[in-house]
Amino acid sequence: MLSERDGANAPDVELVEVVLRDGFQPIGPWIPTERKIALLRRLAATGLRRMEVTAFVSHTAVPQMRDAAEMLAAARDIPGLRAQVLVPTARQADLALAAGARLLAYVLSASEAHNRSNVQRSIDESVEDYARMVERVPPEIDLRLNLSTSFDCPFTGLVPEEAVLTLLHRLLALRPGVEVGLCDTTGRATPDQVDRLAALVMTSLPEARWAFHGHDTYGLGASNVYAAFNAGIHVIDAAAGGLGGCPFAPGATGNVATEDVVWMFERMGLRTGVDVDALLDVARELATIAGAQPGGRVRDALAARRRCGAPTAPGDERACGQRGEAAGQAAH
Amino acid sequence: MLSERDGANAPDVELVEVVLRDGFQPIGPWIPTERKIALLRRLAATGLRRMEVTAFVSHTAVPQMRDAAEMLAAARDIPGLRAQVLVPTARQADLALAAGARLLAYVLSASEAHNRSNVQRSIDESVEDYARMVERVPPEIDLRLNLSTSFDCPFTGLVPEEAVLTLLHRLLALRPGVEVGLCDTTGRATPDQVDRLAALVMTSLPEARWAFHGHDTYGLGASNVYAAFNAGIHVIDAAAGGLGGCPFAPGATGNVATEDVVWMFERMGLRTGVDVDALLDVARELATIAGAQPGGRVRDALAARRRCGAPTAPGDERACGQRGEAAGQAAH
Repeated sequence: MLSERDGANAPDVELVEVVLRDGFQPIGPWIPTERKIALLRRLAATGLRRMEVTAFVSHTAVPQMRDAAEMLAAARDIPGLRAQVLVPTARQADLALAAGARLLAYVLSASEAHNRSNVQRSIDESVEDYARMVERVPPEIDLRLNLSTSFDCPFTGLVPEEAVLTLLHRLLALRPGVEVGLCDTTGRATPDQVDRLAALVMTSLPEARWAFHGHDTYGLGASNVYAAFNAGIHVIDAAAGGLGGCPFAPGATGNVATEDVVWMFERMGLRTGVDVDALLDVARELATIAGAQPGGRVRDALAARRRCGAPTAPGDERACGQRGEAAGQAAH
Repeated sequence: MLSERDGANAPDVELVEVVLRDGFQPIGPWIPTERKIALLRRLAATGLRRMEVTAFVSHTAVPQMRDAAEMLAAARDIPGLRAQVLVPTARQADLALAAGARLLAYVLSASEAHNRSNVQRSIDESVEDYARMVERVPPEIDLRLNLSTSFDCPFTGLVPEEAVLTLLHRLLALRPGVEVGLCDTTGRATPDQVDRLAALVMTSLPEARWAFHGHDTYGLGASNVYAAFNAGIHVIDAAAGGLGGCPFAPGATGNVATEDVVWMFERMGLRTGVDVDALLDVARELATIAGAQPGGRVRDALAARRRCGAPTAPGDERACGQRGEAAGQAAH
């Protein structure tokens, strides 16, 4: 997959860091553009080669994204970084292209109720709008389709696999070979469900490329990423610090944390290209941003190892050294 | 498996609730026995049919477990509850049996360094001690072998599968057919590793029964439980509130939370026999106990659903109703 394009040193997993868009979008207090750009640069320096850096959306609905053009420009200045921008409409895609975007992520939902709430139109209207966009977007621009509520809808519950498949057939007929992100918007997908849907769509639509976007709301973020990867999906979204997620579950943390995903894959012996220690430094700062609900586990776990002097690299087995502390505890 | 014993209404997964032992053991401040017993009764009332209720261990090393006999007596008074007690030595097993224990969990480690730290003896000495215990324990008493550091040791890192297998062959020769708990003591096992070890031991030692004991330290608790279940291990340890875990990783949360495991399995359509709402009430109290590092995700996620009036049952899809909040966010 990736190795065809990037050669022998390509990562085994292509991570898409979404914190700057998905993590920041729901945060009310304004985060100054300079701070966002500093975080963008630090994230890129950890080895992340692809980021959803902003969204071209209504400034009224999502004021935090009103610096979209500046964020995109800053991202394009970083060598080797693929800057992805989210667009919910063909009109916003025009604005994104005019601002220099080379990779657009279009978002629509597999469930009618979520699509109406999220982008204020029916699925049919979204498909028509996507068709308009495809007509105008030149072939050298990469497209990604983010299919929200691919598994579960916050309003209507479980989304039937057949509905997802039918919609994907319609969308992929318009431009085959785009990348499709199966999004677990509510975090209520289970790994067996991810496994089933991934197998179904990959068999039925072999011309597409596939990505998985998971939330950790119910603690299944890593499980679902693992299931997606095992099913053959090697493009994985995540948000440093575990920020973001579904705004319909207030108080609940959201996106699976990039540091957790990196740690899992590296521990499995798979290359992500990301320096987990450098990423943890950024993730810790992100987790302190006002209004954010940080998630993730590895951040705390490795902070504890750091405090007691143990190495933090996923493959480094050297001990914490605090052998005395638990002596005789009969822990297991 | 279970269905042979328990009939058609048997759960699909046998959960072993370990919070009263594994969760409380590392807590310094004394938790009064009456409070522990009240929690034991509330946990049993959620539908949990098996609990590790205490440990017969040195009162000096683990003062929190000094009410072991009272806890066991209280557990034996609860109809239908299988009360499991942890014993690190044959001598402690004698005390547990004298106190009326019918299900003993013996603990030793697959790694030499952890065994010496945890039970102050070599693996060979533990095997000899286990042999002595097996000679004295009548066949009507159920035995479980908890193999700590089955995947990773906090002192020496990755534990080779061959070492685990060789040790298990020695132990199971002494009494075939006991239940073996593969314990991920550090939380550093990955789901692919759990899958591989489970397949290996189940093929090589088909006479044994298998359980999995996982920690969520690095966010892989649910992933590893899922991998274990998929590999055919249907006895799963967990701790309500996500308490407990590895005392070698200070500040890092530990055992996979029972409510997360229940939620995952029920959401997958598998029966656990546990009322997740009732369990959440106990889990919330447990998470407030002084000195505990609570873990788990479902507790917060479902509290958020409760606050906005949405139902919390894993299969109940009805919406939160806060459709307005995220309108136009282009969330996915």
